[in-house]
This record gives sequence, C-alpha cells and structure tokens, in this order.
Amino acid sequence: MPDKENLKKQIIQAVEKVKETNPMAGSITNTVTINFVANTQLAVGGSAAMVYMPDEGELIAKSGGATYINVGTLFPIYEQTLPLTAKSLHDMGKPWVLDPVAIGIGSLRTDLLRKFKEFKPSVIRGNPSEIIALAGLWGLDGGAGESRVRGVDSTDSVNAAKAAAVSLAKYTGGAVAVSGETDLVTDGSIIAYSYGGSHFMEKITGAGCALGGVIAVYATAASPFIAALTGTAVFNLAGSRAEAKTDAPGSFQTQFIDELYKAAADEIADNQFDIIEI
Amino acid sequence: MPDKENLKKQIIQAVEKVKETNPMAGSITNTVTINFVANTQLAVGGSAAMVYMPDEGELIAKSGGATYINVGTLFPIYEQTLPLTAKSLHDMGKPWVLDPVAIGIGSLRTDLLRKFKEFKPSVIRGNPSEIIALAGLWGLDGGAGESRVRGVDSTDSVNAAKAAAVSLAKYTGGAVAVSGETDLVTDGSIIAYSYGGSHFMEKITGAGCALGGVIAVYATAASPFIAALTGTAVFNLAGSRAEAKTDAPGSFQTQFIDELYKAAADEIADNQFDIIEI
Amino acid sequence: MPDKENLKKQIIQAVEKVKETNPMAGSITNTVTINFVANTQLAVGGSAAMVYMPDEGELIAKSGGATYINVGTLFPIYEQTLPLTAKSLHDMGKPWVLDPVAIGIGSLRTDLLRKFKEFKPSVIRGNPSEIIALAGLWGLDGGAGESRVRGVDSTDSVNAAKAAAVSLAKYTGGAVAVSGETDLVTDGSIIAYSYGGSHFMEKITGAGCALGGVIAVYATAASPFIAALTGTAVFNLAGSRAEAKTDAPGSFQTQFIDELYKAAADEIADNQFDIIEI
Repeated sequence: MPDKENLKKQIIQAVEKVKETNPMAGSITNTVTINFVANTQLAVGGSAAMVYMPDEGELIAKSGGATYINVGTLFPIYEQTLPLTAKSLHDMGKPWVLDPVAIGIGSLRTDLLRKFKEFKPSVIRGNPSEIIALAGLWGLDGGAGESRVRGVDSTDSVNAAKAAAVSLAKYTGGAVAVSGETDLVTDGSIIAYSYGGSHFMEKITGAGCALGGVIAVYATAASPFIAALTGTAVFNLAGSRAEAKTDAPGSFQTQFIDELYKAAADEIADNQFDIIEI
Repeated sequence: MPDKENLKKQIIQAVEKVKETNPMAGSITNTVTINFVANTQLAVGGSAAMVYMPDEGELIAKSGGATYINVGTLFPIYEQTLPLTAKSLHDMGKPWVLDPVAIGIGSLRTDLLRKFKEFKPSVIRGNPSEIIALAGLWGLDGGAGESRVRGVDSTDSVNAAKAAAVSLAKYTGGAVAVSGETDLVTDGSIIAYSYGGSHFMEKITGAGCALGGVIAVYATAASPFIAALTGTAVFNLAGSRAEAKTDAPGSFQTQFIDELYKAAADEIADNQFDIIEI
Repeated sequence: MPDKENLKKQIIQAVEKVKETNPMAGSITNTVTINFVANTQLAVGGSAAMVYMPDEGELIAKSGGATYINVGTLFPIYEQTLPLTAKSLHDMGKPWVLDPVAIGIGSLRTDLLRKFKEFKPSVIRGNPSEIIALAGLWGLDGGAGESRVRGVDSTDSVNAAKAAAVSLAKYTGGAVAVSGETDLVTDGSIIAYSYGGSHFMEKITGAGCALGGVIAVYATAASPFIAALTGTAVFNLAGSRAEAKTDAPGSFQTQFIDELYKAAADEIADNQFDIIEI
C-alpha cells in the first residue's frame, strides 16, 4: 500500500513551499473565469500571468515554474499559441496542466486536444465526461466518444471515468484529477479519493478552471500527483468551510477565496482522502 | 385586458421548470461582464457555456435551449461567428436574445446589428437609447439615430423607447425588454411595467448583460414575452432585496447573486408589475 | 515648496467633479481584470466602456473624457487598434493613461510600447520594474533593461524607479505613478509619496490595472498629476479601510469596492501624502 503519512508530508511541503516562494504559474485560459483563476492562484500563494499571443505563450512557459492551459473559450490565434506553448513545455520538461473544457465542441478544440497527446500534459484535470472523451480522442483504454459532454457540464460520474483517468495517467506519466462529488486523483498506479467541497461549487462558474490553475501553482513545487492531490484537497477543504458560512453562491464565492487563503498546510493534508492501489 | 393571474402562473412555471431541468443557454458575450452573466445564469438554475469561434457558435445554438448574443466587446472573428450563429438559431426556430450594447460604436457593430434584422431575435433587451437606435437602424416606427447612445449608457427614458420597443416586438414576433428605473416589457400587443431594482444596478457593470443572459435561460422554458418578464421580475426582486442589505456596490453585487439564487417562483411572480393593452 | 493645501483643494475638486458629472473614460484593457477595472471606475463615479476593434478605439478616444490603455493581455488586432487609438488621443490632445503591464514579454508588446513614446501618454502607471523598463525602452535617464520584470510582478522598489519616473514625466509633460508599498507620483518637478493601502492588494489580481482605470476617470476632470495623485490616494484610503474590515482577499476585494464608493472628497484629500521638490 502507498504510505498515506508520506503523502501528507509531501502535501505539507508543497503548500509551504508555495507560500514561501510565491511561484509563477502562467496560464492560457478562458475569458469566463480568468479572473477567478488568477485570484485563486494568488490566494494559495502563487503568482499569475495570462497571455494569448504565440511568442508570449512560449515566454510564459519558459519563465514560469508550471503552466496552465485551459481550452474553454478558444480564439483563432490559439491555433498557433497553444501547440507552440505545449511543445515548449514538453521540450523543456516543464510541468503543465491541461483542462480539456468542453471537449467535442468545435473543430479547433478537437485539433488542439488531439495535438496535445504528443506533448504529454503533466496533469489533466476535467469532469468525468471530459476525461472519458479525452481518453477516447487519444485512443486510450476507458475512453469513449464525446457525446456525453454537455457544454461545460458532465453527464458521467467520477467512477465511470476511472479507467480513462488511469490510462491517461499511464500514458502521460503524470497525473489525472477527475472532479465530481468525490474527486479522484491518480498517477496510474495509485488512486486517491478526496472528500469535501460544496454543492455551491456547481453554482459558481469556474471552480474546475480555478482548480486547474491552482494545481499548476502546486506543480511548481511538487510532483504532478502531489500537485493534483494538494489542489483537490485545498478546494475540498475551502469549499466545505465556505459552505458552512454561507447560504447562497455569491457569498460562497467570496468566502471560498478567503478559505483558500486561510487554509494551513497541515489542514490541507488532513482533509479526508482514501488511497487504493490499482 | 390580458389576465394578470394567468401571466403570474406562466412566470411560476418558467421559474420552476428552469430550477428543475437546469437548461443550457449558451452565450456569445462581452469580456467585461462574461463572468457575471454566467454566474447569474447559474444562480437562477440555468447552465452556461460561452464561445467565440464560428462553428462553436453554431454548435452552442444547436445544443442549447436558447442562446444569448451580446455585442458588447467585438472581436474580428465575430464577423463570421455572429451571423452564422444567428442564422442557425433563426433557421432552427430556436429562441435567442439580442443585447445591442453600444449600438452605433464602430462599423462591425453596425453591420452585425443590421444583419440581425433578418434573423429576428426572440427577445431584444437594451436600455432606452439602444432600443430606439436599433429600431432606427432597422427602419421601424419609433426608431431614431444613434446619437443618444453614450458608450454603454442611455440618455433616454424608458417611456421614450415605448414606440420603438413595440415596433421591434411586432416586427420580430417576439418580445422586447427595456431597462430603466421602471422596466418595460412588451410583445407588441401588451406592455408590462416591472418595478423594483436598485440604484446600485447602475454602479456595477453588467446588470443589463446579466439580465439578457438570464432571459435566455428562461427562454428555454417559456415564450419570449414570459421569459423577458420573468427575467426582469427576478432582477427587480433581487435588486430590491440586495439593496436592503447593503450600502455600497461591492457588497451589493455579492448579495444580488445570492438573492437571484434564493428567489422563489411565487415571489418572482408577485414582484409588482402592471399591464396595459396597446 | 509646492503648496500642499492647494493640492488638496485640487484633489477635492477632481473627486467632486467626477461624482457630479459621471464622466466616461473608455478602456482597452486586459481580459483578466477588465471587470474589476470597470467596477472600480463606476465606484468612484465614472462611466466605463471597453473595446477591441480599431475604429472603436478611435471612437472611444473621441467620445470619452480620457482613455485607459493597458497592454496586459494582447490580442492580434491590438497591432492596429492601439497605435490608432493612441495617435487619436495624442492628436486631439486628450488625456490618456498607459499601463505598460509585463513590458518585455513578447514582440508585439515591445513594438506597441515603443510606438507609444511618440504619442506621449498623459499618465503612466506601473510597478517599479515596469517604469524602469519603459524608461529604458524609450532611451530615457533612469531606465534599464526589462530583465527585472517577472510576469506581472515587480522585483524593484519604488525608490529604485524614481529617476525613471521623473524622466518619463519630463519627457511626456504629464505624470507618472509608481505603485509599491509607498506610492510615488511625479510630474517631473514635484514628487508626492502617498501612504496607506493594504498587503491584500497584492493578493487580488488587478489592483494596479484598476488604479490605471480610475486615474483615467480623474483625468477627465483634473491635470495628469492631480488625477494620478487622486487615484493613488483613494486606492490607499480604500485599501486601508477594507483591510481593517477583513482578514482575507475575497472579502477584501468586495470591501475595497465598497470603500472606493464611500470615500468622500475631503477624506481622499486628507489621506496621508508628502511632497518634495526635485
């Protein structure tokens, strides 16, 4: 069995290193939730920078400790920017996080996501339907067509995406985080289930995007698996705490950022999770 | 006289259907308020998805129950995306909401808004100056030039836009919602005046855009007139309630989203409105 | 010595004129913080309008009392829009505020910032590293290379940027505002140090962008130096007050907008500042 105490220690180290070093994790992300992504990255102790132009993507990749690519709202220039940036990250061996938002909608999105297979994202974060569809697009076990992605929402449960998540992690050599009522994080050999969060996280736009951005912050300071687990844990902790203080989504979002900021390293490590070997 | 009790019943049905079915209303909207639009759509029970690319506009039109098009901040690609999306919506007979923000600023905006005449938006939402200018651009009664639009603000009163609103609704066969201190909603044969709201709604950016997005959510579940009236009513109710709890615009915006979320179907139907036959 | 009481009177006049006339200050600004910029402009009494297209930039320049240009997230169309807009502003003698965010990242950004030298922005607002790098790019005293700009963050202190700020202000004939723990505002002959603010302003994205937007609002009603000093003062006042009421960045941001809205003209003028002659 993987050693849970050892994982907790690594979570604590990741959180503390981020709070001490204020690492930069650049992003190319959608316009809907870009502000929320940046504010959550800052709340956990990271630094944010967002770009659209091809050479700026390369520069952000070079200068940041990790990079977050979210395909939520594509612009035409992304046809150049995203493959160039992902290739740079891959060639430099730098960690990057992919959020395959709304996979299946539009030809550019499909082209870009297909190309990313070659550049092996360190962490893939998505809802169950997106994870299943990405494994399908990449021809991996557990994958299927994109028919179950409904806009940005999932119609599948986390466990339905387990096989796809494991095969994606095995293929990339990194980690996969599947968001749902209980979250699943895997490096292809271990699966961690992380508990907590809030039903309000589906009532504010961008909880998933923000998680991707925060995982990128932790990926500057830890392995892909620990980064994905740490980001998932702090979101579950902050979500539970924010829900306890609010009764509606506007206040919840404000409190959620507050709780991300306040969460201490040991509290994040102590947020409930189970691990199983595959 | 139109039956007010019957309208209230339809409002209740629209609100409840949205809360039960979580319908998707996609948007092509401006970058300034895109997050607020999505969060208000989610708060009332809808689901949001935003895109920019031409084929994605078509897909969102196809997969959503209704679509929201807001021309606030145009990108070059909109020259392709918006006519294609509006045409798809029209050809499929699907409801769509147009917000002619800042009509008169720039040649692309004028071209797009002129083309939309052919694709007959189900609901047009704007401030009085925008409604008058759109009727003017489309050569309809009550319309006039664009000189009174000042950026995104109106220099006309709601009643000054009554004739333009009625002629636009008659032309499209849908509804028009004019936002002001008292709001006017018409289907071309009935005019409803909806009361409430808050002076803080002019102190936060995007109250109008968000109303357009929320009307699109209700348009998945009701006629254009009922959707426009329901959206206007819930905004007036939530605005009044949020103002009662706050004394400045930052807190107001948070509370406003909370109150959108909390507003019950019968409370929305009971928000004060008057109806007159034309 | 410059007369401090006279400066206070001019600050009061600027604040009151804005609250009375609701002046329009258009912006071309980044997608990360565009909503926050608009909401802070509205909170202090201004009106906002944001665009991307070339002819719209010209129109906003013409119709607004001042314009804000922030190069945070560049789109390809900016290659046309920004020089055209800046040239219009310069040719009309209208005030405009430049925020050279992330100077040194990417070729388009460098090209645009180099061109802006000719169009002499009325106010330049940046962090110390950006101010030093802009003076360097324009070949002015106190300038240096861009190596110290880290994404959107500064690695230099405000005083390290004093010579660059002074030479930029002398060159443009306008003012420069350098943001740091203590803020420095200069017109090339006087330096004002403005005190207050909050450490949380670095924990929310866009405090600097929003300050640029608010300075543009005041530039519709006052000289560049008074506009820069007034904007800086109201941000320091609102930041201190918001920090006193909150313990985390989510709540802080909400309170900060509230305090911007509540700040009275005499309170803003009374916010602590020192002046020295150069």
